[in-house]
Amino acid sequence: MTSARPEPVPTLTSIQELIADLPETTVITDPDLMEGYRYDWARDPGAGHPVAVVRPTTTEQVQITMRWAHRNRVPVVPRGAGSGLSGGSSAVQNGIVLSLDRMRRIEIDTASRVAVVEPGALNAAVKAAAALEGLWYPPDPSSFEMCSIGGNIATNAGGLCCVKYGVTTDYVLGLDIVLSDGTAITLGGNRLKDVAGLSLLKLFVGSEGTLGIVTRAILRLIPPQAPPSTMVALFGSISAAAEAVVAISRTARPAMLELMDSASINAVEDHLSMGLDRNAGALLLAQSDLGGSLASAEIAEIERICMACGATEAFRTDDPVEGEAFAIARRAAFPAIEKRGSLMLEDVGVAVPRLPRLLAGISEISERLGVEIPTVAHAGDGNTHPIVVFDAADPDSCRLARLAFDEIMTLAISLDGTITGEHGVGRLKKGHLPAQLGPDVMELTHRIKDALDPLGILNPGAVL
Amino acid sequence: MTSARPEPVPTLTSIQELIADLPETTVITDPDLMEGYRYDWARDPGAGHPVAVVRPTTTEQVQITMRWAHRNRVPVVPRGAGSGLSGGSSAVQNGIVLSLDRMRRIEIDTASRVAVVEPGALNAAVKAAAALEGLWYPPDPSSFEMCSIGGNIATNAGGLCCVKYGVTTDYVLGLDIVLSDGTAITLGGNRLKDVAGLSLLKLFVGSEGTLGIVTRAILRLIPPQAPPSTMVALFGSISAAAEAVVAISRTARPAMLELMDSASINAVEDHLSMGLDRNAGALLLAQSDLGGSLASAEIAEIERICMACGATEAFRTDDPVEGEAFAIARRAAFPAIEKRGSLMLEDVGVAVPRLPRLLAGISEISERLGVEIPTVAHAGDGNTHPIVVFDAADPDSCRLARLAFDEIMTLAISLDGTITGEHGVGRLKKGHLPAQLGPDVMELTHRIKDALDPLGILNPGAVL
Repeated sequence: MTSARPEPVPTLTSIQELIADLPETTVITDPDLMEGYRYDWARDPGAGHPVAVVRPTTTEQVQITMRWAHRNRVPVVPRGAGSGLSGGSSAVQNGIVLSLDRMRRIEIDTASRVAVVEPGALNAAVKAAAALEGLWYPPDPSSFEMCSIGGNIATNAGGLCCVKYGVTTDYVLGLDIVLSDGTAITLGGNRLKDVAGLSLLKLFVGSEGTLGIVTRAILRLIPPQAPPSTMVALFGSISAAAEAVVAISRTARPAMLELMDSASINAVEDHLSMGLDRNAGALLLAQSDLGGSLASAEIAEIERICMACGATEAFRTDDPVEGEAFAIARRAAFPAIEKRGSLMLEDVGVAVPRLPRLLAGISEISERLGVEIPTVAHAGDGNTHPIVVFDAADPDSCRLARLAFDEIMTLAISLDGTITGEHGVGRLKKGHLPAQLGPDVMELTHRIKDALDPLGILNPGAVL
Repeated sequence: MTSARPEPVPTLTSIQELIADLPETTVITDPDLMEGYRYDWARDPGAGHPVAVVRPTTTEQVQITMRWAHRNRVPVVPRGAGSGLSGGSSAVQNGIVLSLDRMRRIEIDTASRVAVVEPGALNAAVKAAAALEGLWYPPDPSSFEMCSIGGNIATNAGGLCCVKYGVTTDYVLGLDIVLSDGTAITLGGNRLKDVAGLSLLKLFVGSEGTLGIVTRAILRLIPPQAPPSTMVALFGSISAAAEAVVAISRTARPAMLELMDSASINAVEDHLSMGLDRNAGALLLAQSDLGGSLASAEIAEIERICMACGATEAFRTDDPVEGEAFAIARRAAFPAIEKRGSLMLEDVGVAVPRLPRLLAGISEISERLGVEIPTVAHAGDGNTHPIVVFDAADPDSCRLARLAFDEIMTLAISLDGTITGEHGVGRLKKGHLPAQLGPDVMELTHRIKDALDPLGILNPGAVL
């Protein structure tokens, strides 16, 4: 549908025009300073060199930037904290990077029970501000301490508690958005229910900066969780652990249900020497936040299911501090695996009953290609993070890693799964998107994109 | 944006063509039989006379119908159970009514914990099928016994438990959709998390049949609620009750928080003689489903808040049967009010802290215009149902009722609220949509509509 568009190259004059229209220090053109805005955590080798980085502090400044970009047909890559894992905010050659990192205001409205936040605010800052008022913002990507709400909205980010509490889109009640031509619109508001007109609000969530720039969000808050009861169980094999997840999902509703495979357990043990059982095939970590004796009973039932599914041992506690100690291994998995080499982070997901087949398939790919792929998973919602480890200095290792990365996506699609459960398509996974969605849905996607961004200046090369 | 399109009139030949392409008994052209498909519960006086009613039993038959309609530029009004309250499925003159009432299959997949349902299946049937497997489908519009899942998806329907459990869109994981040209697509699936590509799935939910025809839905199921603890409180004035709702919403998370005003209490008492206090200014009904002692404690806290906000009396029970007896008055409100005359059902909503002002404004409109407007509300999410009672045989009463109906929407918008929290815009409210959304969002809406239905044959005249 979308025809190739001529690559725009802004002239020096036109950039001077933008600089003149914005407050001093808003536009960066120094190549050294711009270097820090070229990549997200995916370190996409295809990232281009921007002509400028714009760091607005108001919606109006975003509008000025988009009007200028629209007039001059300059590509714009919106950027939050740069913690994306799919290259969704890799800079585009000769484009603008629009960094929302200076827009960080957070207001908690306790009466409406919402947070009104700017996109650069960190997820952790929103959680903390809500907690000060005795409220809770649930979505908790593992990177919550450094990722921004704008990025969370752009990717419809998930996390550990999503298995019970849903993902980012479930908490977005309102958005202020600047469209590709600089028009500012408001969608939704602090109303809990509103069905007036099309669900445009939800369309923008997860659109990875390809449809508009979020400049303000109204997020639903809920009362805090009760202190959790926690269980950890060890299994002889990953397939036994996966079957336990399927069995738990049939009857219980844990507030967290995480899995680590043998390779990730060993990576953590190498890193922290916690005394984890190096011979364990997999570990499951579950929490219940039903509160008091109900949580205790739910976690006991989860332990019973684990033992019935062949767990070799299991521990449980109603003490939140001890429970957090159980969770340390899971939280340490990513930093531990990071020590083993360069990483390509996968994010494939399937329906929970297919989790055993997905995990078996990942092991098979790892063994066949001889690539180390420790895997952790938000098992309760079928979302896995196989982490492909490779040696960036060895071209053969790079090639095999990329092959494994691609094969894992093909495997997920063959199981009627998704190539991305929470990280987004970005630039790293877009080659696989048509295989998942099929030509008709791709065509429809292009129609929506063309309707909202007819010049194709918003984050070109991402998703599509 | 959208220019007026010539009104298409299908020829006799073209209809014979459609009849020939579909199984016998699928197409109805008998005017007497078609009469039952011209209206939904809004009884829109502007409903047209269709040229045919098509009652497909498969997605393929929906495709055949849409290909024919597309080729002949015939308007198509999709229809579920016909229980809509905004005229969203009023027949269009010389158009087709596409009734999904024969597509009612329901499969419960306990392993994935989803229901796979056809659009004509009733909400109550889905709930019942899930309950047989020990699972729960939460969305519970008051009409759940007679409304269809397809209609629920079309309007993004809410209900009583939505204050805690969210609305229809929060439970839709996958949709099969037939587009305006007959193309069939599948969006999402039985995966709990999936961010691959734009959120097209969510765009179709709440689109009131203007973007495509849902032929299958995959709905998330969760474990059932614990037996509820229930409280009912009476207040001297509606403003005191509304302030109690605001206070409750600051700290508790009830699974139901309903309000009845004095007029609706009296209507129920006229109807059922339950012994309700006719002098009460308002009644609040709350339930907690935290389970056991936690529910008991939460409902006691809600009672305490009600008394602190000036409740004249309150009762609570942990016995679900007794609790259901408390709820009878609320459930009987609509049938009771229906006895008082013809009705126009409002569905306006605001942020919870503005509920007192919305309710005061509705009383003011009722008094000033001399129109009876008993009001019930899903108070916990700020969504109210003022019910305008009028005498259909009296032109003056009709005029004043319509005036009150319009003024209530204007009031809601002035409070930064919505003209519809859960019923949809349909044809009855579309005149007020631009005032709520503003010209830029309306323009964007038209762009999306034009991208997905360029000939404008899908439910023309609804929403837009």
